[in-house]
Amino acid sequence: MHRQLRAGIVGGGQGAFIGAVHRIAAEMDGEARIVAGALSSDPAKARESAEAWGLQRSYASFEDMAREEAARDGGIDYVIVATPNHLHLPVAAAFLKADIPVICDKPLAATLEQAEAIAGAVRESGCLFGLTQTYTGYPLVREARELVASGRLGKLRKVQVEYNQDWLKDAIENEGHKQASWRMDPERAGISCCVGDIGTHAQNLLEFVSGLEIESVCAELTSFVDGRALDDDASMLLRLGEGVRGTLVSSQIACGEENSLSLRIWGTEAGIEWHQQEPNTLIVKPAGRPWERWRTGGGYTGEASRSATRTPGGHPEGYLEAFANIYRDFTADVRRVAAGDEPKRDYPGIEEGLRSMRFVAAAVESSNQGAVWVDV
Amino acid sequence: MHRQLRAGIVGGGQGAFIGAVHRIAAEMDGEARIVAGALSSDPAKARESAEAWGLQRSYASFEDMAREEAARDGGIDYVIVATPNHLHLPVAAAFLKADIPVICDKPLAATLEQAEAIAGAVRESGCLFGLTQTYTGYPLVREARELVASGRLGKLRKVQVEYNQDWLKDAIENEGHKQASWRMDPERAGISCCVGDIGTHAQNLLEFVSGLEIESVCAELTSFVDGRALDDDASMLLRLGEGVRGTLVSSQIACGEENSLSLRIWGTEAGIEWHQQEPNTLIVKPAGRPWERWRTGGGYTGEASRSATRTPGGHPEGYLEAFANIYRDFTADVRRVAAGDEPKRDYPGIEEGLRSMRFVAAAVESSNQGAVWVDV
Amino acid sequence: MHRQLRAGIVGGGQGAFIGAVHRIAAEMDGEARIVAGALSSDPAKARESAEAWGLQRSYASFEDMAREEAARDGGIDYVIVATPNHLHLPVAAAFLKADIPVICDKPLAATLEQAEAIAGAVRESGCLFGLTQTYTGYPLVREARELVASGRLGKLRKVQVEYNQDWLKDAIENEGHKQASWRMDPERAGISCCVGDIGTHAQNLLEFVSGLEIESVCAELTSFVDGRALDDDASMLLRLGEGVRGTLVSSQIACGEENSLSLRIWGTEAGIEWHQQEPNTLIVKPAGRPWERWRTGGGYTGEASRSATRTPGGHPEGYLEAFANIYRDFTADVRRVAAGDEPKRDYPGIEEGLRSMRFVAAAVESSNQGAVWVDV
Amino acid sequence: MHRQLRAGIVGGGQGAFIGAVHRIAAEMDGEARIVAGALSSDPAKARESAEAWGLQRSYASFEDMAREEAARDGGIDYVIVATPNHLHLPVAAAFLKADIPVICDKPLAATLEQAEAIAGAVRESGCLFGLTQTYTGYPLVREARELVASGRLGKLRKVQVEYNQDWLKDAIENEGHKQASWRMDPERAGISCCVGDIGTHAQNLLEFVSGLEIESVCAELTSFVDGRALDDDASMLLRLGEGVRGTLVSSQIACGEENSLSLRIWGTEAGIEWHQQEPNTLIVKPAGRPWERWRTGGGYTGEASRSATRTPGGHPEGYLEAFANIYRDFTADVRRVAAGDEPKRDYPGIEEGLRSMRFVAAAVESSNQGAVWVDV
Repeated sequence: MHRQLRAGIVGGGQGAFIGAVHRIAAEMDGEARIVAGALSSDPAKARESAEAWGLQRSYASFEDMAREEAARDGGIDYVIVATPNHLHLPVAAAFLKADIPVICDKPLAATLEQAEAIAGAVRESGCLFGLTQTYTGYPLVREARELVASGRLGKLRKVQVEYNQDWLKDAIENEGHKQASWRMDPERAGISCCVGDIGTHAQNLLEFVSGLEIESVCAELTSFVDGRALDDDASMLLRLGEGVRGTLVSSQIACGEENSLSLRIWGTEAGIEWHQQEPNTLIVKPAGRPWERWRTGGGYTGEASRSATRTPGGHPEGYLEAFANIYRDFTADVRRVAAGDEPKRDYPGIEEGLRSMRFVAAAVESSNQGAVWVDV
Repeated sequence: MHRQLRAGIVGGGQGAFIGAVHRIAAEMDGEARIVAGALSSDPAKARESAEAWGLQRSYASFEDMAREEAARDGGIDYVIVATPNHLHLPVAAAFLKADIPVICDKPLAATLEQAEAIAGAVRESGCLFGLTQTYTGYPLVREARELVASGRLGKLRKVQVEYNQDWLKDAIENEGHKQASWRMDPERAGISCCVGDIGTHAQNLLEFVSGLEIESVCAELTSFVDGRALDDDASMLLRLGEGVRGTLVSSQIACGEENSLSLRIWGTEAGIEWHQQEPNTLIVKPAGRPWERWRTGGGYTGEASRSATRTPGGHPEGYLEAFANIYRDFTADVRRVAAGDEPKRDYPGIEEGLRSMRFVAAAVESSNQGAVWVDV
Repeated sequence: MHRQLRAGIVGGGQGAFIGAVHRIAAEMDGEARIVAGALSSDPAKARESAEAWGLQRSYASFEDMAREEAARDGGIDYVIVATPNHLHLPVAAAFLKADIPVICDKPLAATLEQAEAIAGAVRESGCLFGLTQTYTGYPLVREARELVASGRLGKLRKVQVEYNQDWLKDAIENEGHKQASWRMDPERAGISCCVGDIGTHAQNLLEFVSGLEIESVCAELTSFVDGRALDDDASMLLRLGEGVRGTLVSSQIACGEENSLSLRIWGTEAGIEWHQQEPNTLIVKPAGRPWERWRTGGGYTGEASRSATRTPGGHPEGYLEAFANIYRDFTADVRRVAAGDEPKRDYPGIEEGLRSMRFVAAAVESSNQGAVWVDV
Repeated sequence: MHRQLRAGIVGGGQGAFIGAVHRIAAEMDGEARIVAGALSSDPAKARESAEAWGLQRSYASFEDMAREEAARDGGIDYVIVATPNHLHLPVAAAFLKADIPVICDKPLAATLEQAEAIAGAVRESGCLFGLTQTYTGYPLVREARELVASGRLGKLRKVQVEYNQDWLKDAIENEGHKQASWRMDPERAGISCCVGDIGTHAQNLLEFVSGLEIESVCAELTSFVDGRALDDDASMLLRLGEGVRGTLVSSQIACGEENSLSLRIWGTEAGIEWHQQEPNTLIVKPAGRPWERWRTGGGYTGEASRSATRTPGGHPEGYLEAFANIYRDFTADVRRVAAGDEPKRDYPGIEEGLRSMRFVAAAVESSNQGAVWVDV
């Protein structure tokens, strides 16, 4: 009989939107249940959160959790890291050392140094490591990647990727907004807020779909709100492999925007366009022909998107389903490794995490020098 | 500590899309787990399906299941009915008799007589009864209902509701398509295919949002595909309460349409428009002012939609989340009754089920008489 | 050298939106200039309007104008009738009698009897007669007609056509609104306001694109605003030729709608969808394939739409250009007849005008009898 | 009586799309007629084109035309320059010297030096000079400018402007495509193709609406098609006045794009978004409120857009109407000056032309140096 995996979680307790998202995503397909957690650094809050979720085991510290779960029969099969960025390293390292696979929120760490330390820990442990770069979980993002890989677009030439929000358009970090506070704090968030938090999603999405790497960036990062130590907005020129050129724009002060991530790629034979807020539509723009509107669950879609779809066409799948697709692939790998099989690693992992960190570092350096080309 | 409820399911085994949907929806918020099932009338298939889902208890018949679950310690807290229409009555009746609350797929039954028998069983048992009229679970459908109730639209005048698909545009019921086969079979589906299956969603959505009842219909049902005993298309004129007029169109042969349910209502002060395939947008059309684009999770939305939303604005919620919202409300009522509190009944139930059955009966009768007005 | 034609106009003086539209449309392609007019029944206003437009000849009455223009050297080549409905007959008859071709605003007349009298005058005179059913002038409406005729949609099955506005949602006819006053006055507008004014556009558009006739209607006309003698809203079931079924909805009280004319047709192989407010896009919905977004001026469009397009793709063409396309075709016919050639009659004419009048009569009769089927 | 003005035109003969556009736009509102022209440098073709248009006077050379029209009674009131860029200077200079007002296609000239020479000629002559930066003629572009000026957006922060096409995605300049040939020829087009042709529209639109100037650019221009001497694509970082930051992207190789000019501006209180291909909609994005969809002809729009609108809301106005709005304003100024009144100069003129030329020069220099900041 198909055993449900047992998952643990560190961070993501009450009030942290992303905690509930990880729980729903991890459990959606019935492949795993979260049974243990160290949900907060505040022990009372950790216990309270664990009770609200009905967890079987609540820990006051992640160190205890890693040690005890590794030791017990029926311990967790993997751990979810949903803490602020600066804690990714110690938490991930503790579980990897205990030989427990890790799936970690993005970005990989607060600094490139921390990220490389995580990479080292992954190498040493030999454990699986996943990164919840959510947006690559959307069926039509995978379809887009397949279309590019199949040559449907011809030779790629130009790209435009954007991620615009407005939740940091005012100085809410000074008014007790928990998430804004740590994201605008260099100690906890690292060298960038906007590029680190959402620019990396844009970069990862672009590289995932195009199959190309951003080779260098010419970036201008801005803090539009007075008094901020970190950027709340960024605009960049991009040079990708194979002579592809483009722009990446991300903003957290774009008034009226919710979560407007979009990607456009143009090749010699066709262009494509995708918007995260209407994720079940992918526009294909063939040369000299009408645009095509591809839809999640359309009978004409390929294997990559079909296997990431749970309902027939016309039943919209959203963010939680995309997130769950990352978990589905990761979970399947946990099962493979447990069964002695080769993992597939068909989800974002340590390499994607490192690339994003290098991208952030390059963007910040470029901007600090007044917008010059810096290699990623 | 918050105990997860134990749910059972009848029907919905492998190959039935709706079974997996019920499971994900019932479990999404961690409020319940499906632990027992009679997933198929074919015992081998039932067992196989139960193993794939990791169910603790699999039954060969729903009668056994009702009896044994009622008798055991730690038996199920409620049962999900996900069978074809004609089995809703015997299944629901068996569990209601065993004093187990029932949540049932729609439409309520294959015939009005069966539906009334279910209503009788509900009354006798005093048990909770929910109906998964999914589309009322969308946050912005609830927002729309609140807007109407608040008077924002003024006095209502005109409505247009549509539900267009194309999956029955060819005679796939003759080619072994399982769902098409029972939906086009009067024995199992009742007196209507298209109106029963999706016209009822349109009717329920319209009545839910408008707060009005369809008083009479003037309908033309058509079987465009040769040899069909039941309708695959319908167009109706509607008379609703308070002098409101409008149309309801539903089709399963509308080539190129996936699951295109939409609702438009116009009052003296404003109109509204909602499309199921882009469910996170609600258009409000005030007299003499620009249209407003309301979004799921917008800071300006009301309590009804906010409490049905799991993620911040811009993270699309879809069909599974809407479905889960029906479960969330039903589950809360199961807890209330268990705690001796009054249930809220803020989800579709037996009355909505009966209304839909009467609506189907009226539409069929109207059409049989050549499109005359028939009261619902 | 290509001589510019000389046109005359009756009605459409200052304050009448439609007068300026006719002038721009008639002159847009440089084929004709309006040189003479009887712009108002009020002589002072007629003179003033004529001066504002720089007309060479202004007449106090249309009778004088018909007589004198017919008599003079260099008289007008055709006349435009832009008066309220009830004057179409006397004006058209006067010019037809004087052997001057007529292009007339729609609907053809206030009553079916008047319409038939105009048809008689056309027959007797042998003159060209055009009707400005504007919406058939849009390039993509012509493309849609070609797609249907080419068999791209397969056998047609279902249609939905709508025309929703809100300009009559309040009783502005009682507040001195000139156009509302005559449109709500049975003496001047005939037996219907909403169906006559805009329902006929919907009917004409549907018949033009589908190539089928509406054979019978089951209609409910409503006057939502108290005290109105004529309808401000209508909903109808339609039976068209070849077993096609559908609905036609038109409203002038649909709060927030501007001029929302749209057409959807579904066949066995594909569906199409067009919206007047975004007229440069036509959606084609092939079975089992992604929707296609056809655009005005796309290199893939056919001759019918290409010859109705003035600018390259991406330069939006609008209502005035569509109107001018009707004039362009009519003007070409005036030249053909003058040159002794056979006219092409590839624009709406007396037959289309009569059909619309019969459609209005059928809809009104159906509604008066409580929504029964009435043949058109 | 209102005298129609007499216009002349140089260039724009048969086969040149832009010539017909100028003619329709200049004549649309009945304010002027084109009566004279030097339509081609090829005398036979000039004569033929003039006959097709029914011009009264056709000239073999623009020099003759300027001299003779200035000398004759009833000569032209103004001249339209619709030649390739490199001829703008000699043509404009000839007419300005003859004291004839000039309205000129954009960009102002092939080089900044030529542009400055035109500016000198304008100064010396004291004549009116207009530049057909068409897109500022759209009603909602003017509405957007008013909204920004009114403070509705608060303090501006971020902008994104784009102009994407695909008509130069292949080397059609080598296959006899007339317009492509001169646009890709440095002798006739100047130092840039893509930035000069369409980047300037984007720059002008942005500056027009925002009321701010682009102070410096960091640009990367690319020639994606082998063998091109000029750019077919550009991406730029922008620094505008008052600390506003943003990007400008223009491309002529963006496969599947027609004429996709769009503008987004975000301030502290609201954002706005406009797309040229659906020009009758302007999105306003207020902080914390639903987006508003402003429409051409909406009763709530301001004077600037209302006076640029010819039809009621819902009757789409397009590119030709926008173009005609530039002519309308220019023509009114010609009348004012003729009447001895002060001109209003409420249309793009010599200053806008010079700014665009400086912008092109800065972009080219920036790119030549590898994307460094260059002041405009």
